[in-house]
Order: sequence, then structure tokens, then C-alpha cells
Amino acid sequence: MNFPVIVDVTLREGIADPEGATIERALPALGFTGVTNVRAAKSFRLDVEATDEASALAKATALAERLLSNPVIENAVARSGRGSTP
Amino acid sequence: MNFPVIVDVTLREGIADPEGATIERALPALGFTGVTNVRAAKSFRLDVEATDEASALAKATALAERLLSNPVIENAVARSGRGSTP
Repeated sequence: MNFPVIVDVTLREGIADPEGATIERALPALGFTGVTNVRAAKSFRLDVEATDEASALAKATALAERLLSNPVIENAVARSGRGSTP
Repeated sequence: MNFPVIVDVTLREGIADPEGATIERALPALGFTGVTNVRAAKSFRLDVEATDEASALAKATALAERLLSNPVIENAVARSGRGSTP
């Protein structure tokens, strides 16, 4: 059976995020005030073939740590993609 | 008050995703089989100052369409970031 999984790859706390900082600096000039702590991240949607959702998530986590993220500076978290809009 | 918001920026359906396709092709060589429909996306975590969560999400949606996404090829969806791990 195929389970939809979403993997979120975020920068670890304390790791500089120049993309987020640049966006944050650009916002006031566009009229958006009161927006802080902008952090950029990546995410991946995939369909994983497995017997149950737990093993699909385990497989996605292994894959994320091996291929989708740099564990030195990034966290990878797999979650169920069922019911997610995008 | 500050509300944590997550903006997911995903490619619209039908738009080619070379990054996802490359990941999908690389997986069997690493021993991961049964993974299909890999789609890469971006996400942004931000704190939005607003009187309530609905207006925080509305502000984040406006900002996402103006600055964080290309509406021709991408969808931007803002959701509450409360309780989200990353």
C-alpha cells in the first residue's frame, strides 16, 4: 500500500539562515511590518510503499537522513501527508 | 501578539519538478525501493504580529503571494505553526 509522506527539512537552531534574514529585511519595504524570525526550509512530498503507516514513516526518515538532508546542519522530520492540502 | 505561521510553497500540479525527479531516480541505487511521486517544495516559518490568528494567516498569505512564491507556477498556503515540531 502507498502512504503519502511529507518530509520537512529545517535548519538546526543556531545555524545561520541568510535566505530567511534577507526575506525579513525586504518585508518592511513592501509594507509588511511585524514579521519576525523568518526561517527558510525545504519539504518533500513522496508516496512510500509499505505495509503500514509507521513503517512508511520509518523508511521516509531513513531516506531523509541519508539523501534529503545534511544532518550536521539540518533536522529532517517525516510526517503523514494524508489530508494535507499541498 | 505574535503568531507562528508556516507557509508551504509547492509547485502547481503539472509543473515539472526536476529536483524531485532526480531524487526519485537516485533512490533505488541507495536501496530505497517503492518510493514514488517525489515532489520538492519550500516552506517558511515566521512570526506574525496580529490581533488574532485569522488576520495573522491572512497577512502571511498576502506576503507569501507577493514575496515568497511565483504564483504562475507555485501555490502558497499559510497555516498555523503552533504545535509544529520544526
